[in-house]
Amino acid sequence: MPQINDSYLKLKAGYLFPEIGRRVTAFCNENPDAKVIRLGIGDVTEPLPPAIIAAMHKAVDEMASRETFRGYGPEQGYDFLRNAIAQNDYQARGCEIAADEIFISDGSKCDTGNILDIFGLNNRVAVQDPVYPVYVDTNVMAGRTGTADEQGRYAGLTYLPCTAENDFNPDLPDQPVDLVYLCYPNNPTGAVASRETLAKWVNYAKQTGALILFDAAYEAYITDDAIPHSIYEIPGARDVAIEFRSFSKNAGFTGTRCAFTVVPKSVTGTTADGQQQSIHPLWNRRHTTKFNGVSYIVQRGAEAVYSPDGKQQIAELVRFYLENAQLLRDGLESVGFRVFGGINAPYIWLETPSGQGSWDFFDHLLKQAHLVGTPGSGFGASGEGYFRLSAFNNRANVEEAVVRIKRLFGRLMA
Amino acid sequence: MPQINDSYLKLKAGYLFPEIGRRVTAFCNENPDAKVIRLGIGDVTEPLPPAIIAAMHKAVDEMASRETFRGYGPEQGYDFLRNAIAQNDYQARGCEIAADEIFISDGSKCDTGNILDIFGLNNRVAVQDPVYPVYVDTNVMAGRTGTADEQGRYAGLTYLPCTAENDFNPDLPDQPVDLVYLCYPNNPTGAVASRETLAKWVNYAKQTGALILFDAAYEAYITDDAIPHSIYEIPGARDVAIEFRSFSKNAGFTGTRCAFTVVPKSVTGTTADGQQQSIHPLWNRRHTTKFNGVSYIVQRGAEAVYSPDGKQQIAELVRFYLENAQLLRDGLESVGFRVFGGINAPYIWLETPSGQGSWDFFDHLLKQAHLVGTPGSGFGASGEGYFRLSAFNNRANVEEAVVRIKRLFGRLMA
Repeated sequence: MPQINDSYLKLKAGYLFPEIGRRVTAFCNENPDAKVIRLGIGDVTEPLPPAIIAAMHKAVDEMASRETFRGYGPEQGYDFLRNAIAQNDYQARGCEIAADEIFISDGSKCDTGNILDIFGLNNRVAVQDPVYPVYVDTNVMAGRTGTADEQGRYAGLTYLPCTAENDFNPDLPDQPVDLVYLCYPNNPTGAVASRETLAKWVNYAKQTGALILFDAAYEAYITDDAIPHSIYEIPGARDVAIEFRSFSKNAGFTGTRCAFTVVPKSVTGTTADGQQQSIHPLWNRRHTTKFNGVSYIVQRGAEAVYSPDGKQQIAELVRFYLENAQLLRDGLESVGFRVFGGINAPYIWLETPSGQGSWDFFDHLLKQAHLVGTPGSGFGASGEGYFRLSAFNNRANVEEAVVRIKRLFGRLMA
Repeated sequence: MPQINDSYLKLKAGYLFPEIGRRVTAFCNENPDAKVIRLGIGDVTEPLPPAIIAAMHKAVDEMASRETFRGYGPEQGYDFLRNAIAQNDYQARGCEIAADEIFISDGSKCDTGNILDIFGLNNRVAVQDPVYPVYVDTNVMAGRTGTADEQGRYAGLTYLPCTAENDFNPDLPDQPVDLVYLCYPNNPTGAVASRETLAKWVNYAKQTGALILFDAAYEAYITDDAIPHSIYEIPGARDVAIEFRSFSKNAGFTGTRCAFTVVPKSVTGTTADGQQQSIHPLWNRRHTTKFNGVSYIVQRGAEAVYSPDGKQQIAELVRFYLENAQLLRDGLESVGFRVFGGINAPYIWLETPSGQGSWDFFDHLLKQAHLVGTPGSGFGASGEGYFRLSAFNNRANVEEAVVRIKRLFGRLMA
């Protein structure tokens, strides 16, 4: 009889977004006429830009003819895409990243989980709190934690609280850690890291030997020129950081699926007998053995993100969602909410009124205003008392959401 | 300093196909004028059928408009595709498989590796020998083996030899095992399993509590009506088997990327404290946490495989490759080779002449006939003395390959 991986049994009920989905479905079933607006999950709503559509049509046509048909591609991704990324996202910003350090994948969610395969079970892991739940859950599944306490904190993980008090930028860990997840612009808080903040982390990693797993899925939303888009803008980072990027939020690929991970050749770990071991060949082996490349059609779509038209069109897309964010911020502030994020990020992070619990506020907003957001506590214990609203929606819905927020809270908080 | 997963260091040099790629590249660099024909890696060459092309163009257009745009889909796949699979591949063949037991993914290679996540490290694993290397390598990476011996056999794995002597259908394991990989039609040997053979395995699993991981990626190549296409055609199999399927080889999706895995709700494992645990929710949790669904465009392409036009077009595609297989079989036999497979499978498995080593035969064929095949020993110790040729190529190349085989071996083996 096969033995299961018992670590799965330590996972707390449902991944956050399925749980939200269940509550919303239940509400909609009971209230079939309610016009629910979803500002919960960070899913884009606007169509793919024309340059990307054209590139994918062309690629589909190539698949229709023997002369241009593509079978298995390189598991790591086609050179046309790896080169475009290296040049545009890195070399153009002064980052010393080569095309063969870039691994194309079908999603950052997958990559942030899969990267754990190449590391030993005894690594000590630090996460920001609140945090994108996938970092935590995949470590639980892999067996790197004990069980969770009542607040959802797993034994064995180091949580780095991010609250209004520290401007959502955590202190350095006060105990030794080997792997540190950092996400900037942050999901869920919308906080950004200045050059000084990132340099502090790179120095910490250099001094302690820790490795930074840097999630930059939202870098396109940075509006402030002084904020780095990549951790590799910090000197020395290529020795101590792996970076995750995605086309989901800059180009609207949440349903199209393409992302990439940067594993510099200079990043190292240690073997059980204390030898230094380069990480790049391990990830390359993982990627070529357990993955078979992203659809050619999708990779051609991603390449078009870097064409002159593509660049302009995705900039418009990002600007559109940032205007949504501004509308939400303004609406919330006008009725007295304390609001964070939403300026260099597509997420608005608000303090719940009068210290209301996050899930209570979720239910209140759903039932009274038919608005779906994400309870802060779903992202971690330090998210309790906060709530996330996403700017990913069409303009009419965002404007209607603001009207409902003002209606529901205008009198209470006046 | 992060500790690496030391199990990766146990892996033998390069995954088989990259090693072949390196040798072929080296040869081509030294012999730039050689017209090399590749019958090595099992990659399709014919364009995608028109029904699939049309469906993907339509899906791309849907992504271009807000009204029809698709963001995140269900991680497990869209119902339109899960339903089509359940009806056409299972219920139409009398197999009791429901749509929500089908998980859409981007590849069987990924799934056969990823499935191991949900099982404990102490499971005893059996594989056919020769074997698709991914089953073995992913178990090595996960830490379920010791080191490899000189023949490439890893300590801790149970190898089930498949040779001409047992008609490439192995005996039942002579020691207890928990997970058994079976692949039919077989890669690399092209052998098929009769109903009786599969029933023997299902009974074995029922009696011993083992779980069968059944890879049916090549089921479309079955020409003999008496041969089951799915293990679920055997009564009781839904209690003891997980099945992997792919659109790579029936519909030409090697570069388009779509596959699926069937995890029946009745399959169970045991927890560390001896409880029975259903496997389905564990895989569902893994799939929703570490994966984010297949591209909508690609899923619409896969759905078209089940349309009336799509069915006819993929049948033609399969017939075409099977004709290639017949040409290769005939050519090889005409010069005295002992040949297996290639009738219900796209792979021809041949005995090397005079007991020549598999890699020696590889180099000989590459250098003297500019043909690339796959050395049997690359698939496992019991593959030594055998060689795989793939029927995935265009007709002109296959015919030219036969000419070269006859020229090179005609006199030697006459």
